[in-house]
Amino acid sequence: MAELRSEVVVVGGGLIGLATAWRLAADGIQVTVCDPTPGSQTSSVAAGMLAPVTEVEYGEDALLALNLAGVAAWPAFAEELEAVTGLPAGLHRTGTLSVAYDADDAAALHRLADYQRRLGLEVEQLTGRETRKREPLLASGVTAGVWVAGDHSVDNRQTVAALLRAVELTGVQLIRQRVVRVLTTGTTAVGVELDNGDTVLAPHLVAAAGPWTAQLDGIPAELRPPVRPVKGEILRLQVPKAYRPALNHTVRATARGFSVYLVPRPGGELVVGATTSELGYDTRVLAGGVFALLRDARMVLPVIDELELVETLAGLRPATPDNAPVLGASGLDGLVWATGHYRNGVLLTPITAQVIAETVRTGVLPELAEPFLASRFRSHGGRPQGAPEEVPKVVR
Amino acid sequence: MAELRSEVVVVGGGLIGLATAWRLAADGIQVTVCDPTPGSQTSSVAAGMLAPVTEVEYGEDALLALNLAGVAAWPAFAEELEAVTGLPAGLHRTGTLSVAYDADDAAALHRLADYQRRLGLEVEQLTGRETRKREPLLASGVTAGVWVAGDHSVDNRQTVAALLRAVELTGVQLIRQRVVRVLTTGTTAVGVELDNGDTVLAPHLVAAAGPWTAQLDGIPAELRPPVRPVKGEILRLQVPKAYRPALNHTVRATARGFSVYLVPRPGGELVVGATTSELGYDTRVLAGGVFALLRDARMVLPVIDELELVETLAGLRPATPDNAPVLGASGLDGLVWATGHYRNGVLLTPITAQVIAETVRTGVLPELAEPFLASRFRSHGGRPQGAPEEVPKVVR
Repeated sequence: MAELRSEVVVVGGGLIGLATAWRLAADGIQVTVCDPTPGSQTSSVAAGMLAPVTEVEYGEDALLALNLAGVAAWPAFAEELEAVTGLPAGLHRTGTLSVAYDADDAAALHRLADYQRRLGLEVEQLTGRETRKREPLLASGVTAGVWVAGDHSVDNRQTVAALLRAVELTGVQLIRQRVVRVLTTGTTAVGVELDNGDTVLAPHLVAAAGPWTAQLDGIPAELRPPVRPVKGEILRLQVPKAYRPALNHTVRATARGFSVYLVPRPGGELVVGATTSELGYDTRVLAGGVFALLRDARMVLPVIDELELVETLAGLRPATPDNAPVLGASGLDGLVWATGHYRNGVLLTPITAQVIAETVRTGVLPELAEPFLASRFRSHGGRPQGAPEEVPKVVR
Repeated sequence: MAELRSEVVVVGGGLIGLATAWRLAADGIQVTVCDPTPGSQTSSVAAGMLAPVTEVEYGEDALLALNLAGVAAWPAFAEELEAVTGLPAGLHRTGTLSVAYDADDAAALHRLADYQRRLGLEVEQLTGRETRKREPLLASGVTAGVWVAGDHSVDNRQTVAALLRAVELTGVQLIRQRVVRVLTTGTTAVGVELDNGDTVLAPHLVAAAGPWTAQLDGIPAELRPPVRPVKGEILRLQVPKAYRPALNHTVRATARGFSVYLVPRPGGELVVGATTSELGYDTRVLAGGVFALLRDARMVLPVIDELELVETLAGLRPATPDNAPVLGASGLDGLVWATGHYRNGVLLTPITAQVIAETVRTGVLPELAEPFLASRFRSHGGRPQGAPEEVPKVVR
């Protein structure tokens, strides 16, 4: 049982953890990332939409500001990542089209467009005909559209591969073990214990284990972030050459009240997502989820029927009571949170890495991240407000 | 480039080829099977229904007689295979329930039951309530059922594994190469040429390459069997312990005019099949096929939504103009056909192996197989009647 040392330990090698480690290591800081299977979980399952405007929800204004900063941070991040690694970072600046199927879907889309405009966001309303002009293979039943030029997408698997290369090139130590416990002395976190019994001691810890952050032992119950797993299933389809490109832009659709999105990638891949289910740490792909995605996707894009179903996947989004991430001070000295990104993990990867790296380096959380402190869930030191009684378990 | 010799060469290591090889080798005959990937194609994709009664089609009486002999041959075949190998042969004698969803489906089911009775087959008509009593998880919308005690199922992957072991134990030589050509001298077949340039010479050849039989070079065009590939997609689901057994018997359903079948296996697997498409040698699983199977299956068995979708598969059925197999004399001395089994390959494996082995040993085709000679497709020596102009190619 070895006792290792590092300046920073990052718990979790998903997009957030890897990007944060890279930022720190690029500044000459000695970083260790612990993850049994880096990049393989939620980060590789995500569809990679960068859609703060298209996906805005009523009443999530603080999150919207962060998400907009997130999309703005992507081009420079991608450029630097590509320069360092020589690999594609995966950013595709194609814009996003929201479409509506029936009259009720169109009414909801128009209400949302009004709200988006009141928030000062740039959206362009289209008729059904104008919508199909941009995407000719959309069903003739599509009645309305909204064009958002600034919402893009990322091939998140490319980002994962580039980040794994980037951390390697900057000398980050990657330990393929699970962190089972945070080690503390009084109110100070001093390191982590791994699955194999080894320990890694460090004055700075970043907990970026997504939905598994809630499972870290050694942290007082009242300080644990209220992060729970929300399963999402997605499909990866392949467009045959004869039908390419089936879509030119990311399409987010509402079809008879159901939401579905379709993210095209260069090379003919089309990602269809995503379901939402509260089943604890369960990553089985259920037949009902696949059925619902196909039902909704083929309603707006009938050529779906002719595409090869290459892969079905499920991942766990790290959700919080207010759908916004948990960033910064944990209540234990030396330990900061970088978790709870829910549906915005890919979008917020560059900005989170920047914010958390700065916090570790300077001890000060940038102002942008202040609304996302874990303390917002605590009223008077007890269980976080709005947190579930306990993190859900697999129910079957 | 080696020149090998054998008493019999079997072209194709699917269920039919392997079982025939095993029958011959068990009689002390030296057999060579050539297949690049034995057991991996249609034989492993099939759902394994043994359902001559449930699946009877109007006007296919000759085929029905063979299919009934097929199901009757299974128990002794399975028993011997298990005794020889110590492995499960995969036979499950559970009976089969045909169910109807709406009133039109019920009318069609009752018409078929009348026909089955006129053919002297044993079927029992059930009300919706009686049907659900046998299978409590069926949808309340199921309006009628027909119980067929003699229609069973086979876990075909178990059969493949047992047959691979059986041929090994009986000294069959398995060459993992594709046969590219049948070698002839005048009107006599004398051997095969393999992908790697090797040849295997033998006085007896059995062509059991399923839909690929039509692609064998070296055989005069007018003698080639009119076998074409008909794609079928199936799903493999896993029933969680809490819901087991989701089904006790094989269920064949008609749901709003669409046919779907559900084959339960011990251990919680549930196979859902199958689509039918004429797309040549194309084994892509299309999203539209998966959608249709899920749509129909969940209509009659709603719990489908909660089952894990473990695998999606596509295989190529070897179809003929009259849906019956092609057995016996090819028109070339020394070469016999054992192909064209369409949807009945698993069902007809034991009986075909028996018939073909006897033909090779004695030179005489058993009477049972006479209706299935390739010559039925030839009127006066020209292109087989009803055969397509050419075997379809992949169309996209």
